[in-house]
Amino acid sequence: MSGAEPLRTLYWEQDSLFLLDQRLLPGKISYRRCRSAADVAAAIKNMVVRGAPAIGVSAAFAMVLAAREAAGDGSGAAAIERAAAALRSSRPTAVNLDWALRRMESLLERFGGDTGEELTAILLREARTILEEDLATNRRIGAHGASLIPDGASILTHCNAGALATAGYGTALGVIRAAAAAGKRLQVYVDETRPLLQGARLTALELLREKIPAVLVTDSCAGYLFSDDRITVVIVGADRIAANGDTANKIGTYPLAVLAKRHRVPFYVAAPCSTIDLSLESGREIAIEERDPEEITTLNGDRIAPAGIAAFNPAFDVTPAELISAIVTERGLLHRPCRAALENLLAKGEE
Amino acid sequence: MSGAEPLRTLYWEQDSLFLLDQRLLPGKISYRRCRSAADVAAAIKNMVVRGAPAIGVSAAFAMVLAAREAAGDGSGAAAIERAAAALRSSRPTAVNLDWALRRMESLLERFGGDTGEELTAILLREARTILEEDLATNRRIGAHGASLIPDGASILTHCNAGALATAGYGTALGVIRAAAAAGKRLQVYVDETRPLLQGARLTALELLREKIPAVLVTDSCAGYLFSDDRITVVIVGADRIAANGDTANKIGTYPLAVLAKRHRVPFYVAAPCSTIDLSLESGREIAIEERDPEEITTLNGDRIAPAGIAAFNPAFDVTPAELISAIVTERGLLHRPCRAALENLLAKGEE
Repeated sequence: MSGAEPLRTLYWEQDSLFLLDQRLLPGKISYRRCRSAADVAAAIKNMVVRGAPAIGVSAAFAMVLAAREAAGDGSGAAAIERAAAALRSSRPTAVNLDWALRRMESLLERFGGDTGEELTAILLREARTILEEDLATNRRIGAHGASLIPDGASILTHCNAGALATAGYGTALGVIRAAAAAGKRLQVYVDETRPLLQGARLTALELLREKIPAVLVTDSCAGYLFSDDRITVVIVGADRIAANGDTANKIGTYPLAVLAKRHRVPFYVAAPCSTIDLSLESGREIAIEERDPEEITTLNGDRIAPAGIAAFNPAFDVTPAELISAIVTERGLLHRPCRAALENLLAKGEE
Repeated sequence: MSGAEPLRTLYWEQDSLFLLDQRLLPGKISYRRCRSAADVAAAIKNMVVRGAPAIGVSAAFAMVLAAREAAGDGSGAAAIERAAAALRSSRPTAVNLDWALRRMESLLERFGGDTGEELTAILLREARTILEEDLATNRRIGAHGASLIPDGASILTHCNAGALATAGYGTALGVIRAAAAAGKRLQVYVDETRPLLQGARLTALELLREKIPAVLVTDSCAGYLFSDDRITVVIVGADRIAANGDTANKIGTYPLAVLAKRHRVPFYVAAPCSTIDLSLESGREIAIEERDPEEITTLNGDRIAPAGIAAFNPAFDVTPAELISAIVTERGLLHRPCRAALENLLAKGEE
């Protein structure tokens, strides 16, 4: 695989969903074949695939697998609904998962409980559309966001909001890609993003492959970087945006927003409109996933903390809207996000 | 070794300095025997021993080893001075190292270039005094600081400012120990402290052994903890305090101070007076050590980031005085630290 060619996060082939096992990166490029919706739900839960848009697309294909199973064994629409419920609960914070499932379920409803090859084919077409739309959405996010990145910018990003977090191209990294493609000179500081090191393993890999200058730092280095005037822009992805603009993203995002504010550095969130959840008034209502403490106490299977120590491992935190300079979506930029602006954005068509 | 008995950071025996190899904790308790000043300088550089007070005490004993060598091979006072220079440059940020060396050098000067067994004996006596003083200092820091910790407190600490960072008892952890000993109910959130995981490996171990309830978190979890009102007090150690009260401490300390300010949580620094450096006007003048990028890109010898990625690894950051609620020293508390208050503190005797 060439250095410049992006890694495919997922693809559909041989009536199966193939997921790049992101837990093995950067050491190993290996695809996991999912033949059932349960396989996909497990892969989402175990973070074989991660990133809000990517798990949305994966869940859409999982519904195809569920429909095919139901058609094969005659277990009917109820079995598909059970599969949807299992997928929905596989990870609670990213709303794109629910958004993709609802899109698939609306087709189910239109079929009024009939299952069979025709339904499977229609769901497959929809899943492929969701995948293609995600790619197009990311490119539009990139195009809109690139204007925010000045030539010569030194950018701080957290976790991985790249091609690997989506069907391809990426949200926050999509903006960086688009700015680089426009000829801007950039440098990216990459937070390693403990505990699962998505920055060190995934974002570093993507930037290396694209030859965009990147420097890996520990998550706690950000304060030093801001104090030393090394950051001109912060840009991150999002897992769920509440109606008031409060945004859930990978744990460690909120401290960066607080530091950016103190140092008068703009803080941008890049995400598709499917990440916006108008049903939640504010970030306080966003369910934050708590993951296994072993993700903190062990690394690559080795224990790194004394036996018997308790650990607390929330996977996300919430950045209040007041700290967000703009949200970059496929429909344009949203400066000072609030309910009225978000409603307006969702109501209007794409720009 | 019993659970309650603290681990000895270092001891002098058989004409050698024995250092607990902290890189192997918590998995293995192993002491490294240092027979020469060069052994000690290497151990400080490689972080066999770490923590500003502990490296100060280690450097004092290293000077004894240098004097013994000089007495043995007749290389004279110049050889001792060379050893002091090597020790001084082994780690640049903590000022306690320089402070201890200057104390030993003032005895050298009094001897006017004579080297021999008498000098070695006098230096050994001084090194032992420095060790005993450090222990006593920490206990006084604990006694002064305990009043700052309310009953039922939920404390956040970073890195290890415990018995293992000192000759024993600890500075920030000394305050926590003293509060616990006074019967206060406490819970401590322990930042893991990447890249070398002093929180996960050392602070977690100390608190477990003392049966003080502790919860390990990633460094980037602090924002979540503050947002969720889980922190009542932050307390950390220090490597160097400038004349205006700006304080250098382990990378990641400054972001905690910024978060504490935003959430109106008191932020305390616990350190001996030997950490105060009136020769530096402000934190901007403090030299910040940059360590090997491999500390970030590998863990336990395993690569965790793609080959070819650059990494930046400053070991400390600076917290401005305005964010520090009080500095806890062996001579009492210093609210709102500034030059006049620090000068006054150093001028007066112990309380």
